Amino acid sequence: MKTFEEISLIISSELDQINWSKEPRGLYEPIGYVLSMGGKRIRPALTLMACNLFQDDVQPAVNTALGLELFHNFTLLHDDIMDRADVRRSKPTVHKKWNDNTAILSGDVMQIASYQLIAKTPAAYLKYVLDLFSQTAAEICEGQQYDVDFETRDVVKAEEYLEMIRLKTAVLLGCALKCGARIAGAGEEDAQNLYDFGINIGLAFQLKDDLLDVYGDEASFGKKIGGDILCNKKTYLLIHALEQATTESKKELNNWLNISDEKFSDEKITSVTKIYNQLGVRTICEDKMLEFYTMAVANLEKVSVSDIKKQELRNLASKLMSRND
Amino acid sequence: MKTFEEISLIISSELDQINWSKEPRGLYEPIGYVLSMGGKRIRPALTLMACNLFQDDVQPAVNTALGLELFHNFTLLHDDIMDRADVRRSKPTVHKKWNDNTAILSGDVMQIASYQLIAKTPAAYLKYVLDLFSQTAAEICEGQQYDVDFETRDVVKAEEYLEMIRLKTAVLLGCALKCGARIAGAGEEDAQNLYDFGINIGLAFQLKDDLLDVYGDEASFGKKIGGDILCNKKTYLLIHALEQATTESKKELNNWLNISDEKFSDEKITSVTKIYNQLGVRTICEDKMLEFYTMAVANLEKVSVSDIKKQELRNLASKLMSRND
Repeated sequence: MKTFEEISLIISSELDQINWSKEPRGLYEPIGYVLSMGGKRIRPALTLMACNLFQDDVQPAVNTALGLELFHNFTLLHDDIMDRADVRRSKPTVHKKWNDNTAILSGDVMQIASYQLIAKTPAAYLKYVLDLFSQTAAEICEGQQYDVDFETRDVVKAEEYLEMIRLKTAVLLGCALKCGARIAGAGEEDAQNLYDFGINIGLAFQLKDDLLDVYGDEASFGKKIGGDILCNKKTYLLIHALEQATTESKKELNNWLNISDEKFSDEKITSVTKIYNQLGVRTICEDKMLEFYTMAVANLEKVSVSDIKKQELRNLASKLMSRND
Repeated sequence: MKTFEEISLIISSELDQINWSKEPRGLYEPIGYVLSMGGKRIRPALTLMACNLFQDDVQPAVNTALGLELFHNFTLLHDDIMDRADVRRSKPTVHKKWNDNTAILSGDVMQIASYQLIAKTPAAYLKYVLDLFSQTAAEICEGQQYDVDFETRDVVKAEEYLEMIRLKTAVLLGCALKCGARIAGAGEEDAQNLYDFGINIGLAFQLKDDLLDVYGDEASFGKKIGGDILCNKKTYLLIHALEQATTESKKELNNWLNISDEKFSDEKITSVTKIYNQLGVRTICEDKMLEFYTMAVANLEKVSVSDIKKQELRNLASKLMSRND
């Protein structure tokens, strides 16, 4: 069995071999730039790790894995335009470093490039992987659309939020695992259990993100604490706070939601966090996260390979839960 | 053999059957809107007509044909954002009717939807069609990038312009024909001759567009005459005018290129057109267009099916050349 670190090395070495120094430069250079920013490469790692559960040789799944990573980075590129996010991983985003048009067009060709890698999936699994990938890609767009829609909605229910993050984040993890398993010849039941494992890890992962935004350590989190609070993002915490709040705390919370003046930023973060603490929404969010994590572990248990082989995936899942960045 | 009109009916009826009234509405509604704007549906028609050269039943090529049409409309959607074009086919464009973010995201999912249709290509040809489609899609993005790059370049050579329009416009026509032929079991040589036919028709088609912008009839052309002149678009006409111009006419032309004040619009169009006429660039462009058209006809001749079967494609090519819209 390969460790996560060994898998990660394979991925970064294969990613580095793709040549983006081609013409027209204005189109391809931003792709190289985006990929050079790094990232955890979780998705392609999941593909190769799922593959590795069923066979030693992970090479047949490499191109598919890279395709998923490219697609993920494409979504970040276009999302950053839509969110007017100027910085990612401490570097200027593509639309900031170049311009919106470049970010749109380079993103488009990046999506095509991800399909070109997916098309290199071993012939026997091409149609299966292609269909799952397209379905997943469309779901991710749907998730992004719901995310945008929720910004202007007065009320978003917790289950609607969970469905949004399932689409926007979790399905690609599930897809990554399922593709890797199938390419290694796994049956549909095992592949589906790994898919479900990915979904539950993805949901837990996003709830962890919501928690880190409020309760994380700024230095290790890598972005400013309280960003979600400042932009009134309807996270699992805020949704539950609005649901649980008494008349008085609801009034106070709504007051803060109406304040966007930057000079009150620190006070807004402190006060909203205090309301969250009073209402116990941190615990609610942590409990929900653990619930998904527990389900994920149960999904992994069901996969019909020896327990020892699952250790790396189990470790990765556990690491994603205890992360502070 | 099916006529172009019969083929067009099949395409519009099949296109109408795709359901875009699904959730989230904000994501899918713009796709239905873009497709409802109509258009000549040349690309899917070419796929089915090429298929029809080799077999009666065009049904096996329908999904591929629709995928190409969807992709074409996706490129229009994203190009309109980049060009800040507010109107297409007399209707507001998506980014105008909704907003930029909607146009970006709906375009993204439209590209995925086009791949979902391409994935329905009969299994025996899926990998071939998928690879050709992705290569073509990437080339179209490259063409768009060159088009953008040329805007800020001082000098663009005629051959660079032709390469740009080959990528931006012609390759999709070639791809459409080649896919249709291969799906009907045609050999690579016939398929390649049809591809080349498409390339040459595409190049001629774009030169016709350049000519119509200056010499067309406003009512039938559907957009304002002289649009390319007003925005200093480096068309085949302008490129040749700048190359052919004497010191004096070059000075006059450059003067007009520096004038962007709307109150001189009519005068700019009249004056630049007069310079074109003096320099004979209309004839140069018409000659080049005819050269490509003649090559296209020769490509079609080489396809190893009976002459009578080629009549519909020959008619279509001729119609595209004599069109005034």
